[in-house]
Amino acid sequence: MSPQSLLLSRNDIEFLLYDWLDVEALTSRPRFADHSRETFDAVLDVCADLAEKLFAPHNKKNDTHEPVLVDGKVRLNPEVKVALDALAETGVLAATADAEAGGLQLPQVVQSACAAWFAAANIATWSYAMLTIANAGLLLEHGSPEQVDKFVRPMFEGRFHGTMCLSEPQAGSSLADITTRAEPQADGTYRIFGNKMWISAGEHDLGENIVHLVLAKIPGGPAGVKGISLFVVPKYLVEDDGKAGARNDVVLAGLNHKMGYRGTTNTVLNFGEGVHLPGGSPGAVGYLVGEPHRGLTYMFRMMNEARVGVGAGATALGYTGYLKSLDYARTRTQGRAPSAKDPESPQVPLAEHADVRRMLLAQKSFVEGALALILFCGKTIDEQRTATTAEERDRLTLLLDILTPIAKSWPAQWCLHANDLAIQIHGGYGYTREYDVEQHYRDNRLNPIHEGTHGIQGIDLLGRKTTIAGGAALRELESLIRSTLDKAAAAGGEAADLGHQLDVHLHRLIEVTRQVNTEPDAALRLANASLYLEATGHIVLAWIWLEQFLAAGTGEDHLRQGKRHTARYFYRYELPRTQPQLDLLATLDPTTVECDPAWL
Amino acid sequence: MSPQSLLLSRNDIEFLLYDWLDVEALTSRPRFADHSRETFDAVLDVCADLAEKLFAPHNKKNDTHEPVLVDGKVRLNPEVKVALDALAETGVLAATADAEAGGLQLPQVVQSACAAWFAAANIATWSYAMLTIANAGLLLEHGSPEQVDKFVRPMFEGRFHGTMCLSEPQAGSSLADITTRAEPQADGTYRIFGNKMWISAGEHDLGENIVHLVLAKIPGGPAGVKGISLFVVPKYLVEDDGKAGARNDVVLAGLNHKMGYRGTTNTVLNFGEGVHLPGGSPGAVGYLVGEPHRGLTYMFRMMNEARVGVGAGATALGYTGYLKSLDYARTRTQGRAPSAKDPESPQVPLAEHADVRRMLLAQKSFVEGALALILFCGKTIDEQRTATTAEERDRLTLLLDILTPIAKSWPAQWCLHANDLAIQIHGGYGYTREYDVEQHYRDNRLNPIHEGTHGIQGIDLLGRKTTIAGGAALRELESLIRSTLDKAAAAGGEAADLGHQLDVHLHRLIEVTRQVNTEPDAALRLANASLYLEATGHIVLAWIWLEQFLAAGTGEDHLRQGKRHTARYFYRYELPRTQPQLDLLATLDPTTVECDPAWL
Repeated sequence: MSPQSLLLSRNDIEFLLYDWLDVEALTSRPRFADHSRETFDAVLDVCADLAEKLFAPHNKKNDTHEPVLVDGKVRLNPEVKVALDALAETGVLAATADAEAGGLQLPQVVQSACAAWFAAANIATWSYAMLTIANAGLLLEHGSPEQVDKFVRPMFEGRFHGTMCLSEPQAGSSLADITTRAEPQADGTYRIFGNKMWISAGEHDLGENIVHLVLAKIPGGPAGVKGISLFVVPKYLVEDDGKAGARNDVVLAGLNHKMGYRGTTNTVLNFGEGVHLPGGSPGAVGYLVGEPHRGLTYMFRMMNEARVGVGAGATALGYTGYLKSLDYARTRTQGRAPSAKDPESPQVPLAEHADVRRMLLAQKSFVEGALALILFCGKTIDEQRTATTAEERDRLTLLLDILTPIAKSWPAQWCLHANDLAIQIHGGYGYTREYDVEQHYRDNRLNPIHEGTHGIQGIDLLGRKTTIAGGAALRELESLIRSTLDKAAAAGGEAADLGHQLDVHLHRLIEVTRQVNTEPDAALRLANASLYLEATGHIVLAWIWLEQFLAAGTGEDHLRQGKRHTARYFYRYELPRTQPQLDLLATLDPTTVECDPAWL
Repeated sequence: MSPQSLLLSRNDIEFLLYDWLDVEALTSRPRFADHSRETFDAVLDVCADLAEKLFAPHNKKNDTHEPVLVDGKVRLNPEVKVALDALAETGVLAATADAEAGGLQLPQVVQSACAAWFAAANIATWSYAMLTIANAGLLLEHGSPEQVDKFVRPMFEGRFHGTMCLSEPQAGSSLADITTRAEPQADGTYRIFGNKMWISAGEHDLGENIVHLVLAKIPGGPAGVKGISLFVVPKYLVEDDGKAGARNDVVLAGLNHKMGYRGTTNTVLNFGEGVHLPGGSPGAVGYLVGEPHRGLTYMFRMMNEARVGVGAGATALGYTGYLKSLDYARTRTQGRAPSAKDPESPQVPLAEHADVRRMLLAQKSFVEGALALILFCGKTIDEQRTATTAEERDRLTLLLDILTPIAKSWPAQWCLHANDLAIQIHGGYGYTREYDVEQHYRDNRLNPIHEGTHGIQGIDLLGRKTTIAGGAALRELESLIRSTLDKAAAAGGEAADLGHQLDVHLHRLIEVTRQVNTEPDAALRLANASLYLEATGHIVLAWIWLEQFLAAGTGEDHLRQGKRHTARYFYRYELPRTQPQLDLLATLDPTTVECDPAWL
């Protein structure tokens, strides 16, 4: 790949993977023993190349020619299938899976770097693959061997595609309120009845079959989330020879038309409406995954990875927008320095203006920071999966638990903001559909919504993650950051100074968390959970930037100078934002709780 | 109008106009003596009604069916002409103009309230009218009596429409660099040659003629902005009988396709390309407005009003998005209170959740605050125009000078953010084109760009407005705010407490301004002008909210309770944002200036 790609910076990715995270060290673990930096680089090469050649070219077409409904079928642009088939050929759909299941047994962190190329090139086409990977991963972990054979292997081969059917029209954020039901049958299968909303990739012509993973309630089970079970519901029943057979009773009820992500068809699906009646009795045929009533537990395991995946997608969109606005700012001339006296002197490139540099530094701090966080989460997943002691595994699980809402929400908020700045740098041109950045902005606007809104993530972080195991997850995070503060203190100079600033903010965060968590009234305690999420996110990212500052060392090349300078930007412009947020949290401010909705 | 309109709140407008601004008092001035609250209300009734009935219904169609080029002509949706013709019938195009020029001689503040209805209903269709009003206003002030007769009267009648042709492909923010030239002719007219970019309403089929106001340079004039003159260049030359005659040499070169504002056709125009040759000699026929080389001065006079108009449009989009998300939050049920134990209890309306109320209060503080600021500017324009002493006029001119970049940028930034929150409250539904809020968000994204970007406004505020007349404009603003602080102190209690907080921030702002302005290096002095603009904006809006808090008095009705509570929100959640910004400004932070573009 050319280092001048406008999708991602390969130099940055190599800096993060090798100089910072020392991903090569993973190859000393048995699971990754067959790998080396050479195999990692080779996979990255293949993915970057495929992303540039088969994903990026139809990104705009996906936006301008969204999927259409023709005779009850959804037609996608033909380039989507070409790209996804080529992707399946590479084996990357099973990148992290066990070799015995047909996987490459690559570290998650490498897979995350690969995914970023596809998402930056064409998030809508990539989403089909991402859903299939997530679906297959869940079935590999919780499905029966028969389910793995019947559904996972064809998904890894690219013949079948996957979906996640969670939301219903009346139950989006509140999954406890789903009403889809699963009636047990004498043969051990179930019949599914209900309506699912917001189902991405719910219907298309990409392959032989669509494997829906569906949340439903078995009648007589516990109320709320404890009564939710998980089912495989294929579009076509799978014959014993593995081929797609009779049509199951899953019916496309309509398409949702979105602001962005237009190439990813988003559907309303009806199950068991009697349109296609398999085997005479009503309902869509479903197969229970794992045990009854444990569906949400299985799904959440997957959803945590999906949440980091949302953050990764947001990061990729922010990253490519940054590179495009940087390219524009270096080539487009406009205006002069404030001190220029001669109106006939030539105009200067946009990047010469301080305010444009501020917008570039801000974007760089958001997108490179977010990518570093996503890759850090990937490596932590690898270390957790290959931990040699239960203690180590539990410790890393806690760390991932507390980082997940941040890795989802922070990129979704700030890399969207990066896209906003990318438009701003382009001026009027950025507001037109002739340039790419407006599409990135529209695409990225989804990310603060799906897989749990900001509000949901805030409540998850403050209400659950800071209190689980007696606060052990927060202590893990604190100790992680403190180990960096020790390194910074030892390094002295500017690093020590940044470390000191972070220390002050970290101390304040811990203090405020303790204070807020003593409030007995849950409504008041959680009233400002979203601000807590934002403040914690910025503090975690300040840690990420201190880590990168240290990893850059005293290198005088542009990349390392840029890393150090962007860290400076983050500490001077961004980190101080947390102060008023934490001050407000500390007062347990009742403004929203006390607001009578009639006053609005 | 029904008070339940989802465009704007008539109750709020009446509170602002009559309870807060005492707009009735203007009728004691000779210019407005024929008016009364009754005539103001009647005009508001007509506009609100027209906005609901003829503007709002095709807002979505303007977005989904944007203007198309057919045989070199631009075709708009037919509803646009119907709405604009009905608007012209009301006389509102000449709302603020002198009676002798065919105007209604209404106060600007009333016209601004009327404009908000149209912008909330359909910003794209309203933009045609807004451009015509601005164009006519400029010609009324600086044009010859003949130009007024030939161009302004037909525009007020709705027969002709207006444009503003400033930008060129190589000169957007930097008007000094325009290259369009105007060759003087023996008969006193000029021939215009050049290309203009981003010309809204540059070509359409709405009326008999299009009146372009064009910035161009007369050869031999001074370099830079001092050599720019202003010309009227009609699409069709106007015959002595007032009818449109021969085609002038203005050629549509193409359409720009935008993220939003799609109903407002945006064009590239070529002047003097020889496609239409009037009278044998080359060039487009243009008529000088006022004196040579004073074009930018005339244009800036208009542009200041256009900038407040951009803020007003942003406000209206934010306002209608707020009302729609409020309506949704009151009716859509999802989830339960954090303390709810029973998963089978009914779901509660979204507005019951603290985080949703936070997003509603934030929107309310942005949109009602912005509307109050826009109306305050309107009333100040009225007082300035009808000032009885030169001293009073100069004082108010200074106040308007310093408020203009804020009235442009603050609504553009925060009412766009309001639209973002409106989407977030709608969840997945808000991201679909089936609901209105995603269009508002896309439409509103233009406002931080046109009529001078945020960066330009920041440099205008810090670099020019805080220093003009030895800092007199800033002193006017300070004294305005201090008079409110006195009222708040006298009121005591909560008002005095809010006043005290504002006092602290105001003091800090003045102190930092002084400090920054002593820096001799212009690049460093202006490096963080955008942050200065944001901080000053939030402090001005805190003043607006203290004013509204005081105007609400002790009233127990929902509107006044809401005003007081939103003021609380603003002081607790928003005003503290300025602290880290001002702290950064105080250090004359060199991060952006010192950043080598090669590090990015």
